[in-house]
Amino acid sequence: MKLVTFDSGRVGKLDGETVVELDCSSMREYFERDSAVRETGERLPLSSVRLRAPIVPKKFFHTAGNFIEHHQDLERVNWSHPVNKGIVFFQNVDAIIGPDEPVVYPSQLTNELDYELEMVMVIGKGGKFFSAEQALDHIAGYMIFNDITARDIQRREMKSGVFSFSKAIDTFCPIGPWIVTPDEVGDPHDLDMELRVNGQVRQKSNTSHMSVSIAQLVAYHSPQIYSPGDLISTGTIAGVAASTDDPFSNYLQPGDIVEAEIEKLGVLRSPIISWMQKYGQEPPPADIWM
Amino acid sequence: MKLVTFDSGRVGKLDGETVVELDCSSMREYFERDSAVRETGERLPLSSVRLRAPIVPKKFFHTAGNFIEHHQDLERVNWSHPVNKGIVFFQNVDAIIGPDEPVVYPSQLTNELDYELEMVMVIGKGGKFFSAEQALDHIAGYMIFNDITARDIQRREMKSGVFSFSKAIDTFCPIGPWIVTPDEVGDPHDLDMELRVNGQVRQKSNTSHMSVSIAQLVAYHSPQIYSPGDLISTGTIAGVAASTDDPFSNYLQPGDIVEAEIEKLGVLRSPIISWMQKYGQEPPPADIWM
Repeated sequence: MKLVTFDSGRVGKLDGETVVELDCSSMREYFERDSAVRETGERLPLSSVRLRAPIVPKKFFHTAGNFIEHHQDLERVNWSHPVNKGIVFFQNVDAIIGPDEPVVYPSQLTNELDYELEMVMVIGKGGKFFSAEQALDHIAGYMIFNDITARDIQRREMKSGVFSFSKAIDTFCPIGPWIVTPDEVGDPHDLDMELRVNGQVRQKSNTSHMSVSIAQLVAYHSPQIYSPGDLISTGTIAGVAASTDDPFSNYLQPGDIVEAEIEKLGVLRSPIISWMQKYGQEPPPADIWM
Repeated sequence: MKLVTFDSGRVGKLDGETVVELDCSSMREYFERDSAVRETGERLPLSSVRLRAPIVPKKFFHTAGNFIEHHQDLERVNWSHPVNKGIVFFQNVDAIIGPDEPVVYPSQLTNELDYELEMVMVIGKGGKFFSAEQALDHIAGYMIFNDITARDIQRREMKSGVFSFSKAIDTFCPIGPWIVTPDEVGDPHDLDMELRVNGQVRQKSNTSHMSVSIAQLVAYHSPQIYSPGDLISTGTIAGVAASTDDPFSNYLQPGDIVEAEIEKLGVLRSPIISWMQKYGQEPPPADIWM
């Protein structure tokens, strides 16, 4: 089953090309009620609705380092730190945007805007301090996440051992287009992943390349507590712009279209637009003293 | 004015030793409604209610490095990274606990439990990309935060340039005892700060020692967007256990009582208890592969 949020925040599930509305006020509520939600009776053509970010969770666990290829990739270009499995930090839930919503390029803050294709798990049943054996019971869905990152800010942050701001700026968190339930996904460790910029393939891998299984990953982070609807990402794959031989030809620019695709999970499309396109004026000056 | 959350999540303000109940369902709603909330008419003696965490925000910006003394302190003991001003990451909102609520010592995960006294600002009016001149309009209160940290986990995390898990474990985020509004605080850059463990002073400073003003700090992080009720911390001061000559005599242990005090903001008291005291059994094994 595919679960969607649409228009003014209505919740539904897909029946082919039809959206079947569900009787709950938000996708978080859907999971808080353990998916025990009735249909409202309203059915709309998918083509007639505007899909929104499928969920704004209470917490978004952002993990990294689970694809050794991303670590090797960055090692090759002498990145500052090893990308170890087990990395976690919290993503900015206010930076979440949905499918086809623009990422606004903040040129006052960065000129190294990068992409990172990731899969995320959606937590259904909350819990804490549980084992890998118990973990799959807590997963209610899978979704695509494009981890937009300002590499220049990230390098600056990492001198002090953090990277958060660089990934937390307004509009930097596209997710979607929908949540796919585990029954429809089948084996989550065998899904092709591909990210394209203007149709050109930049990242290509498969979820089978993860070092740590999804169950282990979810269990490992459980001392931090899961609430229903929480998201947890799995880290990106090889091919981010920063790891290429000529990063500045590969960083994102206004006008670019990014398509983040994972087999069975769909395509998450994100246009990059300028500050001027969004706000009709130049960006305010940035006061950077980091 | 002092704002409190009490008993089952009721919201109120203090009138001396009396709690005057306010007609809103949560402290976040109080700020979302721009503090335009009526009294319910119910008044209770402060001594008869159980104070809770004053707020569970949408986001808790955890900043660090604003007190140069904490950087110097850690430099002296060869800490892995410089503690630069401008550090930010998101605190785990599910780890929040209130005054007198116990911090549960997770002995399966750490044996280096540390304290960090911090002041936090409470955001009233949301916003993004604003300047230091505009920032004070967004601050609706001040509060105490004790940033409980597992130093062994933190050192492991920082090899990859993050520290989040070490501060995000269940019960690691005591805040309170109440939110104090700016009119009652007066100058937030001249407040004495002191943290005691079992009555012994461990940290002592003053908010005047911050390198960056509160207005600058709040403005700097505004590209990450503020929602009403969000919290933003100011970083800790000298004297954390990890920076002392004999850290293992100073790390927290079950049975300890930590009192985090800031002038005009009150005292936030947190007992440290063992897993056995909390759950009546030994902790589950931890699967640490970071």
